[in-house]
Amino acid sequence: MEIINRLESEVRGYVRSFPKVFTHAKANRMTTEDGAEYLDFFSGAGALNYGHNDEVMKKALVDYIASDGVTHGLDMATEAKQHFLKTFEDVIMKPRGMDYKIQFPGPTGTNAVEAALKVARKAKGRDRVLFFTNAYHGMTLGALAVTGNASKRGGAGVNMPGAIPQPYSGYFGEGRDTADDLEMLLNNSSSGLEKPAAIILETVQGEGGINVADFDWLKKIEKLCRDHDMLLIVDDIQAGVGRTGPFFSFEPAGISPDIITVSKSLSGYGLPLAITMIKPEYDVWAPGEHNGTFRGNNHAFVTASAALEHYWRDDKLEKAVLRASDRIKERLGGIISKTGFKAEVRGRGFFIGIDCEQAELADEIAAECFKHHLILETAGADDNVIKVMPPLISPDADIEKGLDTLETAIHTVLEQHGLLTNAA
Amino acid sequence: MEIINRLESEVRGYVRSFPKVFTHAKANRMTTEDGAEYLDFFSGAGALNYGHNDEVMKKALVDYIASDGVTHGLDMATEAKQHFLKTFEDVIMKPRGMDYKIQFPGPTGTNAVEAALKVARKAKGRDRVLFFTNAYHGMTLGALAVTGNASKRGGAGVNMPGAIPQPYSGYFGEGRDTADDLEMLLNNSSSGLEKPAAIILETVQGEGGINVADFDWLKKIEKLCRDHDMLLIVDDIQAGVGRTGPFFSFEPAGISPDIITVSKSLSGYGLPLAITMIKPEYDVWAPGEHNGTFRGNNHAFVTASAALEHYWRDDKLEKAVLRASDRIKERLGGIISKTGFKAEVRGRGFFIGIDCEQAELADEIAAECFKHHLILETAGADDNVIKVMPPLISPDADIEKGLDTLETAIHTVLEQHGLLTNAA
Amino acid sequence: MEIINRLESEVRGYVRSFPKVFTHAKANRMTTEDGAEYLDFFSGAGALNYGHNDEVMKKALVDYIASDGVTHGLDMATEAKQHFLKTFEDVIMKPRGMDYKIQFPGPTGTNAVEAALKVARKAKGRDRVLFFTNAYHGMTLGALAVTGNASKRGGAGVNMPGAIPQPYSGYFGEGRDTADDLEMLLNNSSSGLEKPAAIILETVQGEGGINVADFDWLKKIEKLCRDHDMLLIVDDIQAGVGRTGPFFSFEPAGISPDIITVSKSLSGYGLPLAITMIKPEYDVWAPGEHNGTFRGNNHAFVTASAALEHYWRDDKLEKAVLRASDRIKERLGGIISKTGFKAEVRGRGFFIGIDCEQAELADEIAAECFKHHLILETAGADDNVIKVMPPLISPDADIEKGLDTLETAIHTVLEQHGLLTNAA
Amino acid sequence: MEIINRLESEVRGYVRSFPKVFTHAKANRMTTEDGAEYLDFFSGAGALNYGHNDEVMKKALVDYIASDGVTHGLDMATEAKQHFLKTFEDVIMKPRGMDYKIQFPGPTGTNAVEAALKVARKAKGRDRVLFFTNAYHGMTLGALAVTGNASKRGGAGVNMPGAIPQPYSGYFGEGRDTADDLEMLLNNSSSGLEKPAAIILETVQGEGGINVADFDWLKKIEKLCRDHDMLLIVDDIQAGVGRTGPFFSFEPAGISPDIITVSKSLSGYGLPLAITMIKPEYDVWAPGEHNGTFRGNNHAFVTASAALEHYWRDDKLEKAVLRASDRIKERLGGIISKTGFKAEVRGRGFFIGIDCEQAELADEIAAECFKHHLILETAGADDNVIKVMPPLISPDADIEKGLDTLETAIHTVLEQHGLLTNAA
Repeated sequence: MEIINRLESEVRGYVRSFPKVFTHAKANRMTTEDGAEYLDFFSGAGALNYGHNDEVMKKALVDYIASDGVTHGLDMATEAKQHFLKTFEDVIMKPRGMDYKIQFPGPTGTNAVEAALKVARKAKGRDRVLFFTNAYHGMTLGALAVTGNASKRGGAGVNMPGAIPQPYSGYFGEGRDTADDLEMLLNNSSSGLEKPAAIILETVQGEGGINVADFDWLKKIEKLCRDHDMLLIVDDIQAGVGRTGPFFSFEPAGISPDIITVSKSLSGYGLPLAITMIKPEYDVWAPGEHNGTFRGNNHAFVTASAALEHYWRDDKLEKAVLRASDRIKERLGGIISKTGFKAEVRGRGFFIGIDCEQAELADEIAAECFKHHLILETAGADDNVIKVMPPLISPDADIEKGLDTLETAIHTVLEQHGLLTNAA
Repeated sequence: MEIINRLESEVRGYVRSFPKVFTHAKANRMTTEDGAEYLDFFSGAGALNYGHNDEVMKKALVDYIASDGVTHGLDMATEAKQHFLKTFEDVIMKPRGMDYKIQFPGPTGTNAVEAALKVARKAKGRDRVLFFTNAYHGMTLGALAVTGNASKRGGAGVNMPGAIPQPYSGYFGEGRDTADDLEMLLNNSSSGLEKPAAIILETVQGEGGINVADFDWLKKIEKLCRDHDMLLIVDDIQAGVGRTGPFFSFEPAGISPDIITVSKSLSGYGLPLAITMIKPEYDVWAPGEHNGTFRGNNHAFVTASAALEHYWRDDKLEKAVLRASDRIKERLGGIISKTGFKAEVRGRGFFIGIDCEQAELADEIAAECFKHHLILETAGADDNVIKVMPPLISPDADIEKGLDTLETAIHTVLEQHGLLTNAA
Repeated sequence: MEIINRLESEVRGYVRSFPKVFTHAKANRMTTEDGAEYLDFFSGAGALNYGHNDEVMKKALVDYIASDGVTHGLDMATEAKQHFLKTFEDVIMKPRGMDYKIQFPGPTGTNAVEAALKVARKAKGRDRVLFFTNAYHGMTLGALAVTGNASKRGGAGVNMPGAIPQPYSGYFGEGRDTADDLEMLLNNSSSGLEKPAAIILETVQGEGGINVADFDWLKKIEKLCRDHDMLLIVDDIQAGVGRTGPFFSFEPAGISPDIITVSKSLSGYGLPLAITMIKPEYDVWAPGEHNGTFRGNNHAFVTASAALEHYWRDDKLEKAVLRASDRIKERLGGIISKTGFKAEVRGRGFFIGIDCEQAELADEIAAECFKHHLILETAGADDNVIKVMPPLISPDADIEKGLDTLETAIHTVLEQHGLLTNAA
Repeated sequence: MEIINRLESEVRGYVRSFPKVFTHAKANRMTTEDGAEYLDFFSGAGALNYGHNDEVMKKALVDYIASDGVTHGLDMATEAKQHFLKTFEDVIMKPRGMDYKIQFPGPTGTNAVEAALKVARKAKGRDRVLFFTNAYHGMTLGALAVTGNASKRGGAGVNMPGAIPQPYSGYFGEGRDTADDLEMLLNNSSSGLEKPAAIILETVQGEGGINVADFDWLKKIEKLCRDHDMLLIVDDIQAGVGRTGPFFSFEPAGISPDIITVSKSLSGYGLPLAITMIKPEYDVWAPGEHNGTFRGNNHAFVTASAALEHYWRDDKLEKAVLRASDRIKERLGGIISKTGFKAEVRGRGFFIGIDCEQAELADEIAAECFKHHLILETAGADDNVIKVMPPLISPDADIEKGLDTLETAIHTVLEQHGLLTNAA
C-alpha cells in the first residue's frame, strides 16, 4: 500500500474506504493479497452486474486475445464490433421494438453523456439542458455541468453554462408534482428559464442517493419534452443493464427516450465500454464530429456480446432480480423496524438504498461492514445513504449472509450511538 | 459492413477512410476478413506505438486473466495497479529525476486533460487556460474548449468559457516569436487577456498537422509560466510514449512541465489507460473530487507494466526510432524533390507529416495508399497533412516498403492532377 | 412623424402604441402638436411620479442653468451634488434610520443594477445571483441576465452566466411558499443550485405584470440571505420614490436590503439619475472600478433635491397615495364585477394592474383608452396586464375621469368580443 | 467636501484627483466654491467638446424648459426629438452621404455599445465580438466584456463570454501589421478563434492611452469584416463629435462602419444622450427588444440640435481644431526635447497624449498642473499617459497658457526626480 499512498494523487477515493490490496476476484467475491475474502455488495459501482471474471466471458476474451484478434481499432470496422452490434440489435433492440443508432463515443460513461448532450444541442439548435437535483452524470466538463453535487461541481474551476437544475421527482415530498411545476415554468415566457434542447435524467439516481422517480412523473416529463420540442435523454449508465431488473431501467415506465446512454456493466466483464443510443432522426452528427482513441475497445465488444447472449436472450435474470429485490427490501425493512433505526429503504431491483439521514451513521455502518468483509458504499448529497448493490448473479445464500453482516453492523453502530431504541 | 452502415451513428469516421472489416492484427500489420494484409503506418492514431498484440504483453495479459486477477477495481488498491506504479516510478520517473503524483482520471486522453485543467484551475484559483492554434486535446467539453478545430468546437453546441487561443510556435513564420508576443500581452494589464491559470500545449501537434514546436520556444513558454505564476501543462498523449523518440516528447527541450497527460500508447496493447502526472505541490485535489468508473483498468496496468519493462529499461528503442526517423525524412524529402511536389516534410521521431497544402491531394494520396494496402491518415486544419506514423517497432524493410507505396501514390496522384513537374 | 418612421430604428416601441407627436406636458397631462390634451395614467413608466414639469423643480432648474452652475462633472465634487447628498441624508435616510453609502453608477436604472450586481459579487466572491420569474432589471447585459422575459433575453445574443431564476412570491398559487422551496434547495448541497452572492428582487414587479410580493415572503427571503451569507438587493427603480405610497416600497415589509437601486423618479423631473445604495460593509469598490461619463448629472441633482424637500419632509404624499389607491382598486373591482370581466386587480399604491389573462384584450383596451385621450400601457409576460399608474400628484377628479375612460374602454372591448356577460 | 467623503461610495474617482468643490463653469473654465478659476484641459472626459454652458445651447434649453416642453418621453414622439433627428440628418448624415437608422438606446455611451453588440450579434447569429488591446467601451457587462483593462474587467465578478481580444494597430511596434495576423487567424479553421459577429474598435483609444490607429490598418480591418461577413462597429463615443477634428473620427480613414456609437459630446451641453447608428440592413431589432427609461432625454435633444446647427453647418470648427492641434503637438514636442523627457507625444485633433512610460511621472505632473489650476487627467494601462484634451472652442491664448502650466509642471516633476537632463 505504501506505493499508492506515496505516488497516487490525493484524489484517490475508494482505496480510503476499502484500505486493502485486492489481487483476485470471482463472481461476487474479492480476495486480498493476504488471502482474505470479501463479499461484494458494491459491484464496481454498477460496472460488475454479472460479478467478477464471469467464466463464459472470460473464455471468449482469452480465445480472442490468443487468436490475435484486433485489440484497438478506433472506429474502424472489426469483426468483434460487428458481432457486438448484431447481438445488441438481436438481443436487446429488436425484442423491445427499439430503433436507435449506436454511437461509440469513447469507452466511459461520461463520454457517452458528453456525446448525448452535444448531439441533442445540435439537433435542437439550443444550448440549455435541464437536469435534476441530486443528478450525477459524470466528471468531464459537459457531464459535470448537469451533475448536482456542489463539491464535484466546484472541481470544475470554470463556468459551466447551458445547464439548468430542477427539482427531481418527489423532491418536495408528497402532494407536490415537480413535473407540473416545470410545465408552468416552461409555459411562461417570462420565467427566466431559457428553453432547453433536452432534459437529462436517471430513472433511479445512484450517486444522488437511490432516489426513485415515479413512473407517472417520468411519463409527464416525456410529455413535456414532446410538447416543448425538447429531447428526453435517459442516462442509464448505473441503473441500466439489469441493475433494476429489466435491461433498461425505464422499460416499466413505458417511456421512449430520444437518447440513451449505456456504459458500466455493458461490457459485462468490467472493461471500459460505452454507447450513446440515438433515435435516427436525431443522429445529426457530421462524420468525426466527436471522436476518441478508445471508442472501439474490441476486448469489451467480445465480452459484451457474450454477456448479452448469455444473460438477455430470456427474462430469467430479470425475474430473479425482481424476486430477490423484494426479499432484500423486506428484510431491510425488518431490520430497520427491529432496531428502531430512523432510516428509509428505497430502490428498484438490486439498486437499493438505506437513507440514514445522519451521514455519520451511514459512514460508520459501511466501515463496520467492511471490517466484517462486506464491501458496500455510501451515496447521497451528504453520503447519507448506504447502497445495497450486490451483483445480479449473487446466490441467495450470499445475499442473506451479506444482509446478516449489514444487520449486525447497523445494530453495532446504533448501539454505539445510543440509538438502539427497540427491543432488538 | 452492412450492420455498421445501418446501425452505427453517422459520426463514424475511420471506417469511411478504411472501408474494410479487420479481424486480426500483429505487430505492424492488420488483416481483413478476406485475408488481405495491410501495412500499418497509422498505429491506432498513436495508441499502438509497439504495434498490435505484442507477444510479451499478450502473455502477461492472458496469464492475468486466466488467474482471475481483479479486472475492474475503480480506484481500489490492486496488485496490478501497485505493480504499474512501481514500474512507472522505477523505469520512467526515477531515471529522469521526476517527482510527480499520478492520477488515474479515467482511461482516455480526454479524461486526463479534463483532470489536468481542473486541478490547474483549482491550484491557481483562476479559470482561464491558454491553448494554441491547431491544438487538439479531446472531445469532452473541458478538453474541447482548448481544441482549435472549428468544426469540432462547433459540436459543443454551448459556450465553452475559460479558454484563450494564442498563436503556436512558428505560426506567423520565420522571424516572429509568438512567445515574445505572448509575453507582451501578459505584461500589459490592459490587453484584455485575462491572466490564465495554465498554458496547455503539445510539443508536436498531431491532429493539428504535425507542427513541431521549437525547443527555444518551449523554454520561453516555460519561463513565461514561471514569471506569471501559471502552470505548464504538456499534453503528451499523442507525442509521448516514444512517438518522437524519447519517452516524453519534451525531454530534449529541457523543460519541466507542472502537469503531464499520458494515454494512447501507455497501456502498450491498445487498452484504455490514461494518467495525469501532477507535481506534488499542485496535487490539490480533495478525495473523490474527480472520479470515474473505469479509472482503474487492471488489464491495462498489466500490459503497461510489461511494456515499460520491455522497452524502456534502456534507450535502444529511442535510439532506433531517431535513426530511422532521419532516414524516413530524408527519403520523403527525396520523393518531394523528385516529383516536384509542393509539400513540406516535418516532424520528430516517428511523428512525421507531409503538408500537401492542398487538402484534396493529401486525401487522394492516403486513399491511393490504402488501395495498395498501406494504412495512413491525414491531419491538419483542412486534413491537408499526410501523417506518417509507423509503429516504433516496424522493421526497416517494412518502412521502406511502406515508403515505396507512398511514393507511388504521390506519383500517381500528382500525375492525375498534372502536377508532376520534375523528371520523375 | 415621417422622420421618426424613416430614421428611427425598428426598436422603437411606445411611439407605436401612442402614435402622436407630443410637444408640451404639465402635471398629469400631455399635449400634442395639434393641441389635443391627454390624461396621463402612465407616468413615464414610473419616471414621472410627480407629473410633468413640476413648477417648484422647474424654477430651481432654470435658476441653476441661468447662473451657469456646473452641468457636467463626472464624479467631481459640485455644490449641486453635495446639496443632493445632504438632502437625501436628511430627508430620506436619517428619518428611516438608514446607513448606506451612495454610488452614482451612471444615470439610468440599468447602470444602478449593474453596479449593484458587481459590488455584491465582489463582496461575496461568488458569481451567481438569484432572480425571480417575471423579473425585469434592465437591458444592459448584466441586468438583462437577471431579467425573466424571454424575448428581451433573446436580444442578448450571447450567454449570460451567473444568473439563476427562481419562482417569485405566489408563483405557484395559494398554499405554496416559494421561499420555503428555495430554502430546501439552498440547504441541499447536491441540488445543482450554486450558492449565490445575492438575491435581487422587486417588491412589486412592474414590467412582469404588477405582481406583489407578500411581506412575509420578503421577510423569509431576507432571512435566507442572512442564513446563507447572501446579499439582498432590492431593485426599487420602478416601485420606489413613492409609487407604492412610502418612499421605498419595502418599508412596510420591515426588511433591510443590503443594496438598493433607485432611479426613474429620483430626479423628480424626468431627468436621468440613478443611485446604488450600499451598506457600508459591502462598499468594497476600488476607486474608479466602475465609472461612467454621466454619473454626475447636476441638473438632475438640482431637481432631485427640490423634489425631496417638497414632497418627502412629511408623509402627506404617502398618505394621499394610499387613500386614493384604495379607491382606485375598489372602483376597478366594481368595473370588473359589473362587466363580468375575467380579470384580476392587484397592486400597491399607484402601482396597480388589471390582469386580463387574454393579452389581446389588454392591448385593445389600452388602445381604446388612448383613442379617448388616456395614456396607459400594458405589462406582463404576454402584455396581458393593464398598468394603472397615474402621477402621484393627480387630482382626485382626474383619476375618476381616467377611470371613467377606462371603464368605457373595457365595456367597449368586452362587447366587441361578446364577453360582456353581466347586466352592465 | 465632508459629505462626499462620508456618504459617497469608495468607487468615487475624479474627486480624488481634483479635490475641490466646483460651483460654476463657463466655456473652458471651472470655478470653485471659493472663487478660484481652473483652466479646463479635460472637457469632461470628452463630454464637453464645446466647453461648459455654451450660451446658444443654454438659451435654447431655458426657453424649452420655460415653455413646458416635454422633458421625459421614453421613445414617444416629441417635437424636440423630431427636430434632433432632422438636424442630425441634414447637418451630419446627408453631407457625408450616410444612410443609417438611429437608435436611442439609453442616454449613456455604455448603453449605445450594449445596443450595438446586441444588434450585431442578432444580425449575424453569432455570439463572439472581437475587440482590441487597451480598448475601453464601457462598464455595463456587455461593454465591459470588450474592454481591455484588467482591473475594470475584474469588477465584473462573473464570466463575460463572447469577447475576444486582439492586438491593436501598432501594438507590436514597427514592421508588424496586426491586421495581417488577424487575417491569418480568421482564415485558419483550426485557430481556435471562433468566427465573430463583429469587430468593435476606437480609431483613437482614449482611456487606453491615446493610441492612434493607422488609417491603412483601419481599412484592412474594414476589408476583413467584409471578407469574413463580420460587422464593423466604430465606437466614436470619445473620439467623435469633433474631438479629432472631423465630426466622426473615422472620416479621414475613408471607412464606412456598419454600426457607430455616439455619446459624450453629442448633447453638446454635457447632458446624457447617446445614439447607436445602424446601417438599415442590420437594423434587425424587434420593437421594444432593447429599451430604457431615459432613452428619450428631450433636454438633450434641444441642446444637441442647437450644437449641430451652430458648429457643424460648416467646417470652421474642424479646421480650427486641426490647425491648433498641430501647434499643440509641436509645442509638446519642444517641451519634451527641451527637458530631455523620455516621453512620446501622439494623438489627433484635440485628443493628444503624452506617454510618460513611468506612470508615477504622469500622475505627479497632472497633480502639479491641478495645483496650478489646470485640469487634466491621465489614461493608459498604468495611467502613464497625460491626456491633453481642451474644449474645442478654447481660445489660442488659453491653450498657450495651459501649455505653459504643463511645461512648468513637467519641468518641476522631472527636476524632483533628477530626470531633467537637457539644458532646460
